[in-house]
Amino acid sequence: MKINFNELKRGYEKYKSEYDKAAIDVLESGWYILGENVKRFENNFANFIGSSYCVGVNSGLDALILAVRALNLGEGDEIIVPANTYIATVLGITENDATPVFIEPDEYYNIDTDKIEAKITGKTKAIMAVHLYGQAANMNKIKSIATKYSLYLLEDCAQSHGAKFENQTTGTFGDIGCFSFYPTKNLGAFGDGGAIVTDNKEIAEKVKMLRNYGSQKKYYNEIEGVNSRLDEIQATLLNVKLSHYGELRKEREKIALKYLNEINNPKIILPRIRKGSDHVWHLFVVQTEERDKLQNYLQENGIGTQIHYPIPPHLSNAYKHFGYKKGDFPITEEMANKVLSLPIYDGMTDEEVDYVIRVINNYKD
Amino acid sequence: MKINFNELKRGYEKYKSEYDKAAIDVLESGWYILGENVKRFENNFANFIGSSYCVGVNSGLDALILAVRALNLGEGDEIIVPANTYIATVLGITENDATPVFIEPDEYYNIDTDKIEAKITGKTKAIMAVHLYGQAANMNKIKSIATKYSLYLLEDCAQSHGAKFENQTTGTFGDIGCFSFYPTKNLGAFGDGGAIVTDNKEIAEKVKMLRNYGSQKKYYNEIEGVNSRLDEIQATLLNVKLSHYGELRKEREKIALKYLNEINNPKIILPRIRKGSDHVWHLFVVQTEERDKLQNYLQENGIGTQIHYPIPPHLSNAYKHFGYKKGDFPITEEMANKVLSLPIYDGMTDEEVDYVIRVINNYKD
Ligand SMILES: Cc1ncc(COP(=O)(O)O)c(/C=N/[C@@H]2[C@@H](O)[C@@H](OP(=O)(O)OP(=O)(O)OC[C@H]3O[C@@H](n4cc(C)c(=O)[nH]c4=O)C[C@@H]3O)O[C@H](C)[C@H]2O)c1O
Ligand SMILES: Cc1ncc(COP(=O)(O)O)c(/C=N/[C@@H]2[C@@H](O)[C@@H](OP(=O)(O)OP(=O)(O)OC[C@H]3O[C@@H](n4cc(C)c(=O)[nH]c4=O)C[C@@H]3O)O[C@H](C)[C@H]2O)c1O
Repeated sequence: MKINFNELKRGYEKYKSEYDKAAIDVLESGWYILGENVKRFENNFANFIGSSYCVGVNSGLDALILAVRALNLGEGDEIIVPANTYIATVLGITENDATPVFIEPDEYYNIDTDKIEAKITGKTKAIMAVHLYGQAANMNKIKSIATKYSLYLLEDCAQSHGAKFENQTTGTFGDIGCFSFYPTKNLGAFGDGGAIVTDNKEIAEKVKMLRNYGSQKKYYNEIEGVNSRLDEIQATLLNVKLSHYGELRKEREKIALKYLNEINNPKIILPRIRKGSDHVWHLFVVQTEERDKLQNYLQENGIGTQIHYPIPPHLSNAYKHFGYKKGDFPITEEMANKVLSLPIYDGMTDEEVDYVIRVINNYKD
Repeated sequence: MKINFNELKRGYEKYKSEYDKAAIDVLESGWYILGENVKRFENNFANFIGSSYCVGVNSGLDALILAVRALNLGEGDEIIVPANTYIATVLGITENDATPVFIEPDEYYNIDTDKIEAKITGKTKAIMAVHLYGQAANMNKIKSIATKYSLYLLEDCAQSHGAKFENQTTGTFGDIGCFSFYPTKNLGAFGDGGAIVTDNKEIAEKVKMLRNYGSQKKYYNEIEGVNSRLDEIQATLLNVKLSHYGELRKEREKIALKYLNEINNPKIILPRIRKGSDHVWHLFVVQTEERDKLQNYLQENGIGTQIHYPIPPHLSNAYKHFGYKKGDFPITEEMANKVLSLPIYDGMTDEEVDYVIRVINNYKD
């Protein structure tokens, strides 16, 4: 059997006729930029998240960049961020010339809230929480630290569409929630896309200007801005997918529960679920001492896997200038050496899931 | 008769079956980011322009921003730019913290090359030429100034797809050519898109990294970058449109020639064509002392027009901090008060063009 790590074709095929019609309708409409479909998606997505406002942008990274920019954070400002994240989270900070202050993860792969306060200085302006792999960070604790020190709170929800912490949806805890609709995301478009959500009207208006050359009204450029819009075509396709999000989520959950219940190889550490958190299973990440060996073994048995992420941001060449070295964030670095993501996606068959489980359970030294 | 300023629906309908098939093919392929269609478009467009490399990005503005960034231009660097342009040209400079140095236009609406040298200082690093409305700037002169002072030469070709100056295609004169595929552009996508072209392999590789989080190989982030990719869907649609570009161009030319030959109202100043330049007629811009009156008159007669552009960048609120005031660039400011763009687009009928001409020729005080 051959099982790819992910195969977006399958998710598309399930609702092919709806997607095709939606795309052709936009082409036929003759309107391709910031039209009715973007507006409708922004409303739908704000409702889904439970925020007052949603503003579509071109990518998850742009959502982060524009969120930090909307809060006027920049040079000289420090932003607390998990060391264990995809590099885009950090780029959202550094593209604004602000300084990331890394914090080690807890056993749920998210920021270790016990380690935040020690890193707060007079320059700290914000905390950027990330809900990695589909599970919320400990938002109670983070929120109370943000409040105590009067820090802005941002959330990178690129991997957590719909995930909750104690019944509150990720993206609604802080000042701004940032989402990616990169095609492989739980709510993935068919190209790049992203959005911010917020309850603050002023912030929403500012991001609306920032994404559109700094203007609200055509040719009246109030501030300096960029071009970062969600395309009408992507918005209409996202509307279709969002209408099925409940089913899509259940499907991932079913696969995850099967993995959790049936993988029983002592060499494999399964993901832990935080109390009060409901995971949306963007990724199913296991840990093992012999990660590369396991990955090769699975590959030989036809099973594709991936590593999220092999190089922590503080050790990437892009951030050499910060002067970090190996050993600075040992827990993060250990995870980078041990984590492995198993296939989990729309349209994966029971037979395939069973096969992955069987092959993993048969893994020996 | 009612004639919109532009109506993209018509251009789409002409090749509807090709566009629809191309879009559905991408959806069916299951591959949505930096795949075969982007590669094919990059090759096709590089060939069309006559450049060695083309790199697709998310918008025309991003093409400008990443071009300036690829050349390491930033704080303290001055870049010569026409005062008479769309604000995005200037944002490409200021988003990199470099300083725009504005130059008044000549009678062809493009940078007045006689006024450049006086503005060159020890901080000047580059000239950003713009080929406004579809007509090349005086590239011989600009090129020789750039060479004389060892300045980088950038071209904003957002409005000049395929336009030539003395038989050389715009975009190939300098270090980097920047293109927009905003839907209304001559080669417009069905959402946002852009590209840079260059003959310099290193620059092409750098922009490729910059558009993809700073990485060439997945997870190896060599430099700090952003997310600015041309979508597969937009690329495939652009491939279709590019294959018809010859016809599309002729159609615009036909309308422009009719306007040039048949509008004979002494109150209207028609566009001038520079010797050695072949115009691609992105916009057909006339001038008149009584612009707002003429615009209202045309509107009353069912004819939509637009103003490109009513507020010159140096007077926009976004650039207040530069301290410019009314009167600093009087020629540019006068144009902003006098220019009016007439309808010219794919699928405009002869009857409609004749009607516009008749109504304009009937215009009196
Ligand atoms: C926390 C956090 N913050 C911000 C961001 C930034 O958001 P962004 O700017 O929107 O990317 C991310 C993004 N994060 C993701 C990151 O997690 C990773 O995601 P990934 O799912 O591993 O991506 P991938 O390797 O491209 O795809 C996985 C598999 O899916 C299949 N596939 C893929 C594609 C593209 C396809 O078209 N068809 C397929 O069948 C084949 C592949 O093997 O890499 C991406 C480039 C980032 O956008 C993040 O995780
Ligand atoms: C020199 C220069 N440099 C960099 C750039 C930046 O490139 P960008 O980042 O790709 O935008 C520009 C962009 N320049 C253009 C600018 O010229 C202007 O272009 P425009 O054609 O006047 O745009 P418009 O008013 O949106 O559309 C004109 C008419 O077209 C119809 N229409 C429009 C849309 C969007 C539609 O879907 N369907 C329609 O039927 C109705 C409208 O009345 O405004 C745009 C927002 C910029 O991207 C530039 O001129």
